[in-house]
Amino acid sequence: MASREFALIDTYFKGKGHQRKDVVLGIGDDCALLAVSDSTLLAVTTDTLVAGVHFPLDTPARAVGHKAVAVNLSDLAAMGAEAAWVSLALTLPDADDAWLAEFASAVVEVCDYYGVTLVGGDTTRGPLSVTITAQGKIPAGKQLTRSGAKPGDWLYVTGTLGDAALGLALVQGREQASSDHHEFLVGRLNYPTPRLLAGQALRGVASSAIDISDGLASDLGHILSASHCGANLFLDKLPLSQALLGTMALESAWQLALGGGDDYELLFTVPEAQKGALDTALAHCGVKHSCVGQLRGGEGISYLNHGQTVELDVRGYEHCWS
Amino acid sequence: MASREFALIDTYFKGKGHQRKDVVLGIGDDCALLAVSDSTLLAVTTDTLVAGVHFPLDTPARAVGHKAVAVNLSDLAAMGAEAAWVSLALTLPDADDAWLAEFASAVVEVCDYYGVTLVGGDTTRGPLSVTITAQGKIPAGKQLTRSGAKPGDWLYVTGTLGDAALGLALVQGREQASSDHHEFLVGRLNYPTPRLLAGQALRGVASSAIDISDGLASDLGHILSASHCGANLFLDKLPLSQALLGTMALESAWQLALGGGDDYELLFTVPEAQKGALDTALAHCGVKHSCVGQLRGGEGISYLNHGQTVELDVRGYEHCWS
Repeated sequence: MASREFALIDTYFKGKGHQRKDVVLGIGDDCALLAVSDSTLLAVTTDTLVAGVHFPLDTPARAVGHKAVAVNLSDLAAMGAEAAWVSLALTLPDADDAWLAEFASAVVEVCDYYGVTLVGGDTTRGPLSVTITAQGKIPAGKQLTRSGAKPGDWLYVTGTLGDAALGLALVQGREQASSDHHEFLVGRLNYPTPRLLAGQALRGVASSAIDISDGLASDLGHILSASHCGANLFLDKLPLSQALLGTMALESAWQLALGGGDDYELLFTVPEAQKGALDTALAHCGVKHSCVGQLRGGEGISYLNHGQTVELDVRGYEHCWS
Repeated sequence: MASREFALIDTYFKGKGHQRKDVVLGIGDDCALLAVSDSTLLAVTTDTLVAGVHFPLDTPARAVGHKAVAVNLSDLAAMGAEAAWVSLALTLPDADDAWLAEFASAVVEVCDYYGVTLVGGDTTRGPLSVTITAQGKIPAGKQLTRSGAKPGDWLYVTGTLGDAALGLALVQGREQASSDHHEFLVGRLNYPTPRLLAGQALRGVASSAIDISDGLASDLGHILSASHCGANLFLDKLPLSQALLGTMALESAWQLALGGGDDYELLFTVPEAQKGALDTALAHCGVKHSCVGQLRGGEGISYLNHGQTVELDVRGYEHCWS
């Protein structure tokens, strides 16, 4: 996940206390990076999903299990890491066998799919929440961070944007879609795809990366502030699914793509000289990618539609469910 | 922490799914052990403290912060690890500045004391709970586990036992003590001491180890079942503090020492040939240790007082607060 929810951690913990020499990158990126040998960095991330905050109370157990793992693997992907191990801290009100069996099989399934082993955990009684700590490996020096972008670099995203935010609106009854679109969009909300292979393929190619959890505009803001750049964003290049375009007017679709959350696609920057290498690298892992802008000096995001500046007030996304 | 709360994890996750070759020890001990280089194992543990379950709702923020870190470091100690990094997942109902400042300064203080760096975290809104993931390093082959004890090995504990359980009774108004004793006992409940140096000193000396979180009897049971042994436990050798003995009758003190929880002392076994090495190793770190029994064949725990068998029905400890 990106860092909106890190604000409190930043305020109260960043830079406080003893900093070990083996901490290559501490609080403030998608993962911490820890030196475990001369050749290997360990990427570590922790994210919590709270019932009624990060997912509606009636979300299927299978979706809760999948998503809790996937959003953490997405953080590993954003650093260019190979995912290795996860630990699970599960708090639940009572031991509901059917719920637990479904939850557990989803956790095991998504771990298996990505070659990850669940190595430990803790179960406690209390209001439903799931905390996953995920760990991955990166060859030393090959990590992707938020801070390496330069003016002139091109801005890319994987996949399509805004689907999960519309999926949430469907689940909450705020929007309606055809049944095919409904299934796709709610699937994008409940079963995000961590872009692990794409993240690894971007090593040595991308100059910065982050995963999109709070919406493109917000997460791009993190890259811009860490890299001291501004950006031009091309609205006409935003990758929007047929399901999104078939359900919403274009301007509303832009809003969901820019301000909606839970996409878990990668947002990354690529220097001009690496554009060819990028296409080759991502073609190998079969991940769709779109160039959606270019970095510039200054700060902030300028929105353009077919080259014309557009005034846009992007509404932020809050992980807050009724 | 020991493994009572791992029961659900064991049932639903142990041995399920893909097991990576770099997982040296998976679910079921105090930590997972992961191979990160030819010479180093990483020990990883996750524990959650839920308000109203693991600590009373009116526990000071400083105690919550200290204890959440300390109980995880205690798991590292039980494996013989050097503590290195912690991640924090904090769920809290609202952003109370005074509470957070006190909590954070306790987390930073205990991390500093043990040379640990807080490398990341996540804050979410919801009912108060704290999940810490702690990581440490062990030279390959030097790990302490629950499974290496043999009949004839001597059984040791660090520190004194039962203090924290009596501290809880005081906080809950079920017992009363003099003000000096009260302060000591509640301190033992709220500010446990992870025995990190002792754990490292036990490398190559102890044949098995665990930390005592659910009471000596319960946690010894984990060693016995992992090592396929039984044990004779010497009641007259149990290390009991002056505060405990000054407040309770001897039999009640035994009950708290055996069945009370939250001690976070180490329980370990030492072969006869290593007894001298043990005294030297622990003298260097200034940690009191007591020989409280001996392993034997068979199974289960026999209680002896000055060599005479005693029938004792040890009441278990539940982390459950009114």
